[in-house]
Amino acid sequence: MVVKKYKDMLSAKSVIREMSAQAAERGKEIGFENVFDYSLGNPSVPVPEKFNQVIKELLDTCEPVALHGYSESHGIWEVRDKVAKSLSKRFGLPYTADDIFMTAGAAGSIAHAVRAVADVGEEVITFAPCFPEYFPYVNETGAKLVLVEPDLKSFQINFAAFESLINEKTAAVLINTPNNPSGVAYSTETIKKLAEILRQKSAQFGRDIYIISDEPYREIVFKGSDAPVVSQYYDNTIMCYSFSKSLSIPGERIGYVAVNPNCKDSHTIIHMCTQISRGIGHNCPSSLIQLAVAEMLEDTADLSVYETNMNILYDELTKLGFECVKPGGTFYMFPKALEEDSVAFCKKALEYDLVLVPGDSFGAPGFFRMAYCVPTEKVERSLEAFRKLAQAYGK
Amino acid sequence: MVVKKYKDMLSAKSVIREMSAQAAERGKEIGFENVFDYSLGNPSVPVPEKFNQVIKELLDTCEPVALHGYSESHGIWEVRDKVAKSLSKRFGLPYTADDIFMTAGAAGSIAHAVRAVADVGEEVITFAPCFPEYFPYVNETGAKLVLVEPDLKSFQINFAAFESLINEKTAAVLINTPNNPSGVAYSTETIKKLAEILRQKSAQFGRDIYIISDEPYREIVFKGSDAPVVSQYYDNTIMCYSFSKSLSIPGERIGYVAVNPNCKDSHTIIHMCTQISRGIGHNCPSSLIQLAVAEMLEDTADLSVYETNMNILYDELTKLGFECVKPGGTFYMFPKALEEDSVAFCKKALEYDLVLVPGDSFGAPGFFRMAYCVPTEKVERSLEAFRKLAQAYGK
Repeated sequence: MVVKKYKDMLSAKSVIREMSAQAAERGKEIGFENVFDYSLGNPSVPVPEKFNQVIKELLDTCEPVALHGYSESHGIWEVRDKVAKSLSKRFGLPYTADDIFMTAGAAGSIAHAVRAVADVGEEVITFAPCFPEYFPYVNETGAKLVLVEPDLKSFQINFAAFESLINEKTAAVLINTPNNPSGVAYSTETIKKLAEILRQKSAQFGRDIYIISDEPYREIVFKGSDAPVVSQYYDNTIMCYSFSKSLSIPGERIGYVAVNPNCKDSHTIIHMCTQISRGIGHNCPSSLIQLAVAEMLEDTADLSVYETNMNILYDELTKLGFECVKPGGTFYMFPKALEEDSVAFCKKALEYDLVLVPGDSFGAPGFFRMAYCVPTEKVERSLEAFRKLAQAYGK
Repeated sequence: MVVKKYKDMLSAKSVIREMSAQAAERGKEIGFENVFDYSLGNPSVPVPEKFNQVIKELLDTCEPVALHGYSESHGIWEVRDKVAKSLSKRFGLPYTADDIFMTAGAAGSIAHAVRAVADVGEEVITFAPCFPEYFPYVNETGAKLVLVEPDLKSFQINFAAFESLINEKTAAVLINTPNNPSGVAYSTETIKKLAEILRQKSAQFGRDIYIISDEPYREIVFKGSDAPVVSQYYDNTIMCYSFSKSLSIPGERIGYVAVNPNCKDSHTIIHMCTQISRGIGHNCPSSLIQLAVAEMLEDTADLSVYETNMNILYDELTKLGFECVKPGGTFYMFPKALEEDSVAFCKKALEYDLVLVPGDSFGAPGFFRMAYCVPTEKVERSLEAFRKLAQAYGK
């Protein structure tokens, strides 16, 4: 008598997993260095050496019972205070520790943010293409994720489709900019228009509609990109941050919820997060890791390789005839496949040892995702494979 | 429009918090060293120095992208393999990595275990006195926690009351031995009888009823105590372990689910845990901390102080006329209050600078909990206060 719902989830086929398995098989045959695996969004650059140094210093200088002890259920106060001060300085909003809740990565942040503002039976709207995990993240809270079809020309927001889906059950809008999978950052114009619509609709339906802004790629923004700070444009913004990508420490599970201090319920939402934690078994990220990132709030890994890789791939793929919106950040790009069926296209690509992910699971069939968090020399070696693939489609 | 359920939880009064606040006030007046705070279950002994050494070695020798990278969603395979081998050796059951799922402490373990076997609307039975957090842990899954009234003489299981509460909706029994708050370990006789009843009732209702065995105090067992390994007596046992107490690292949030390898659905349950994680934002404990505890599976902090403290307090309190079941482990004891109203009794104790917690929130009014994870010299200094308190009640 195990629970059917979770057991049934095990039999769901994952195209990504299937691609990965085939790539692994091929790697065994021809050597992993010769398989061009663009399937996984794992950071490829090391954390700054300072992170390890900070941990060693903490171990050497702190009293162990305190260092490894329970943190308050909101997270360690000094850490929240430092996060608030850093955000205030960078974003010009008056954050205090009372607006900050420490979490186990962005997954933990979103788990709290959605539960805080979307009740059972209410709706959370998000925009295709989007991270497929948004479905279990939201639907398991008892609220329902509603997907707005994409603007395929720009991967900004399809406002006409969006407006038609807002109703009296809309509790929040979940956005991710810069975006996984498109790599696109929402422009200032997009964010201003989104905020204006939400203010109107909040008034119309007599309820606060929140923006839940999932920002793990906030620090990976490319030159000349217009990537505004969402919270500056909308008071009822709950920012969900993760250090996974900016510091290259995804396994350490550390991030935070930061509610815009201009949101009238900010402190209430942060306190509510401690209650939400009790029901989902969260109980704070590691104390040691909290204290370590608190010393690195304005550091990042050397993220420049992602922009280098993007430029090489964008130039070559567009030259080969691929249509692609130029990424403004992240380590993803999302070109149009060379045939309508992007699953078939990605299977074809495997013949050239290119591991790509079909856009279907991101809500945009006909496109494919490339995660170019790989060494630049490998990106360069992969270009010949892309040329052969394009040739196979008569390009 | 924040979610009412969680907002309402904020206004719930906590007697423990009220006691703590009063103790803090008193500490400011007379010095914290003179307030005998027995309210909080925080380990008081340091983690072995080896833990810090292991972390430093990992930082010095591992490639950083791999070290701080995502672990598989089950936890790092090598860590799970080591946990399985250690459990097999110690408990004589054939655990493999496929029976182990790494979690953020016992809270994370229970969050997964309950969701795996208890569907929405089903029931999980537990026994008073119990850890009050079991209510949000279970009830927030959509299942319902059912509390069996205590056996006040022994704090073993009240089997008559238990049997009357088992029905076709009973999915699991949640036990905690050695127990918070009583300090009592369930005897071999108790576990055998519990297992026998569950086998009968599973057959009667045509479903597997699981034991979810919350074992954070497993390594804190006192001399001569009969504290059997639960999994040895019942195949459908899901063990929820935390390193918080055994290694004194509660802030590092690390533990595991270990399903009895003789449970026919063991591997399925472990795979299901990865699906459950997606909906609650869990996504594994810190990789660094996983790798560190994997080197310390048979180490503990120096836990002897808890037995020393227990003996001092048990001897003195029983001499003073308190009724108390002698603890078999943990760092708790649960004597009977000297008046019927244990809240009033604990308020009276505050006059003597003793911070005790009424048994009401543990499901056993008329008793009080003492967490004696404090320095022994402080325990000794507190005896005079207990003498005065007993005198005030004419003892």
